[in-house]
Amino acid sequence: MPPTSHKNDSLLRALRRQPVERTPVWLMRQAGRYLPEYRATRARAGSFLAMAKTPELACEVTLQPLARFDLDAAILFSDILTVPDAMGLGLYFVEGEGPKFQHPIRSAADVAQLAVPDMARELRYVMDAVALIRRELAGRVPLIGFSGSPWTLACYMIEGGGSDNFAIIKAMMLNEPALLHRLLAVVTDAVIAYLSAQRAAGAQVLQVFDTWGGVLAPHHYREFSLPYLARIARGLRGSGLRRQDAGANGEAGPDGGAQERDVLGTRESKIGNAGLGIGDRAAEQHGDERTEVPLILFGKGNAPYLEELAASGADAIGVDWLVSMEDARRRTSGQVALQGNLDPAVLYGSPEAITREVKRTLDSYATGGDGTRTGLVFNLGHGLSPDMDPEHVRGLVDAVHSHAPI
Amino acid sequence: MPPTSHKNDSLLRALRRQPVERTPVWLMRQAGRYLPEYRATRARAGSFLAMAKTPELACEVTLQPLARFDLDAAILFSDILTVPDAMGLGLYFVEGEGPKFQHPIRSAADVAQLAVPDMARELRYVMDAVALIRRELAGRVPLIGFSGSPWTLACYMIEGGGSDNFAIIKAMMLNEPALLHRLLAVVTDAVIAYLSAQRAAGAQVLQVFDTWGGVLAPHHYREFSLPYLARIARGLRGSGLRRQDAGANGEAGPDGGAQERDVLGTRESKIGNAGLGIGDRAAEQHGDERTEVPLILFGKGNAPYLEELAASGADAIGVDWLVSMEDARRRTSGQVALQGNLDPAVLYGSPEAITREVKRTLDSYATGGDGTRTGLVFNLGHGLSPDMDPEHVRGLVDAVHSHAPI
Repeated sequence: MPPTSHKNDSLLRALRRQPVERTPVWLMRQAGRYLPEYRATRARAGSFLAMAKTPELACEVTLQPLARFDLDAAILFSDILTVPDAMGLGLYFVEGEGPKFQHPIRSAADVAQLAVPDMARELRYVMDAVALIRRELAGRVPLIGFSGSPWTLACYMIEGGGSDNFAIIKAMMLNEPALLHRLLAVVTDAVIAYLSAQRAAGAQVLQVFDTWGGVLAPHHYREFSLPYLARIARGLRGSGLRRQDAGANGEAGPDGGAQERDVLGTRESKIGNAGLGIGDRAAEQHGDERTEVPLILFGKGNAPYLEELAASGADAIGVDWLVSMEDARRRTSGQVALQGNLDPAVLYGSPEAITREVKRTLDSYATGGDGTRTGLVFNLGHGLSPDMDPEHVRGLVDAVHSHAPI
Repeated sequence: MPPTSHKNDSLLRALRRQPVERTPVWLMRQAGRYLPEYRATRARAGSFLAMAKTPELACEVTLQPLARFDLDAAILFSDILTVPDAMGLGLYFVEGEGPKFQHPIRSAADVAQLAVPDMARELRYVMDAVALIRRELAGRVPLIGFSGSPWTLACYMIEGGGSDNFAIIKAMMLNEPALLHRLLAVVTDAVIAYLSAQRAAGAQVLQVFDTWGGVLAPHHYREFSLPYLARIARGLRGSGLRRQDAGANGEAGPDGGAQERDVLGTRESKIGNAGLGIGDRAAEQHGDERTEVPLILFGKGNAPYLEELAASGADAIGVDWLVSMEDARRRTSGQVALQGNLDPAVLYGSPEAITREVKRTLDSYATGGDGTRTGLVFNLGHGLSPDMDPEHVRGLVDAVHSHAPI
């Protein structure tokens, strides 16, 4: 593994809320269909899944945006649904319809059969990709690993694909909340194991995408999404693996408690068996994992919960564009770094408009705090889209960097 | 026209924040495809538009949910896109794809050709439907008229139909903000004329649907949606028609001011010519129109702006399910009534779950204020969907009424 010092460590410094020479920027879905070279690799691979499951191709597309733009981070090319796929749900893609599962989870029997996948076997292709990308990056910029959030993964697992109204998972949430909590507990264990394994394989920052938390009413968000995000933050710091801590901090749903800790115990030994749990054990011992591998919790529609997310144990909160950075910073002041939050649709504007809106975001963040941009990672409020112009993306990245960080 | 006294005036009382015997409830899209009798009428009509444009059929489907459920209001069956259709954009529907316009608005020349439609001619079918429904209701419950918000109508007018990312209107917003403001000014005039005409024809409550305001970043919402909502509230109270008031309260976008007032002047005489402006003139004189025909501003994603909406001059704010009624009431306390806000997906739950969530909403509202439910109109946070069970809707309505209002 290459040395942990970087030629460009502005992302890591910003996530630790240390001063930087220029505000770091990366973009969700920066490796994607808007790039002709991505489309070429995908055509060669034959399918999205083939590309994601072949470490050399995943590495290739991960590095493509870095060759074009002055980005401050690489993010693993993968899909949030690799985890449920490894749990046996059978992920497949229908052109123009998005992801689907052959075996959606609908019953108590379905949930009972779910188990944390063996990271070294079923998800080895992801860890191999992480290790390969890290090697190829040669320390240029940090590598971000990621996972979907438990609630978001559960949405796909239960609906069997994307959804407009989340009718099936919401019916389960209302009618069988304990069943949904059992599913979320297993998925949370899997996410912790998955992120721990990515960290062990070389990921230097971890991000959780809670894409669908924002479809929940506040009392449902606080019961079915937020506690599992907090459990991930604790789990990655080691404390979540300890029986006593899980009990003391257990803010999970009604069926948390003892059962949850048993599952976590199972998960821990599973990772140990897979030989990928060493980082976790080390973290438990020296307790400084948090600053070593920062965790970013991104959530679409998470603005109402910024105070709670800031107290969850994560290092940074990624926000969408429906809150000003000024408000977001004021409400989380001093507790976490922030990542965001340009409306992705700004990329449909002219280069002048993009520069203007980038500056506005940077200035908004400064206004919400001490006038500096310490603790800011610039990003979009959501991902890039296939019809966006790469030259506009270049303009955005350069506009961030040309604005002084303080 | 029938007398203005009602057998059931709980909606009007709640909107005026007066005590009621039971909390009034109506549901967005209560006349819709989830009802077999609606599907039968639609099949007979041949198309959605034929149904909306034939007053007898519009009246028939408006009354259908009232025959089934103990609802406290009727809402005109129509579509928010009747106004742009009347402006010459050519509304049509493609099965499974939603509404489309033959002539979307893309250029300065397109915007220059837009004019406020003649309510008595191009939108006569709507006014005839309002008058007929009002007659058929015979005072049983109040009749709600409605319009789309300027921003929401502009989304459809510019995109040419529905959109996932609002790329075209957001590009115009960023690159040609003055052009978009010109469009929004004309549409706002049309909305004021449209709602005034519905009021004159017999509508006893008016609601504006800002379906897409929530896709905007806060600074864009405050420039391109909120000011036009406030202008509608003023316009319906008459003050918006007076030069001095429009000048004094003008919080509109950069190109508001003199031009805007000219347009309002034009609009006023146009309504006068159409013979439907009498109610407006009367309102200007006795100044009590606000309590006579209350205005509800509903907005998906409007939770961040509740304080500002409460100060807009509207009588009530309709909120989606992404904020608790407790918070919404606390933040708007004493200024407006509130309408909402059950997650529509709760209707996919069991009858027991529906009752539980209804109670939670009612109790949440009470907790946010003085412990009473004065000033609450129960509704969903968005509309009913075609796959919902009418018996679940009945359970919801009955659960609201069986819970004491205080």
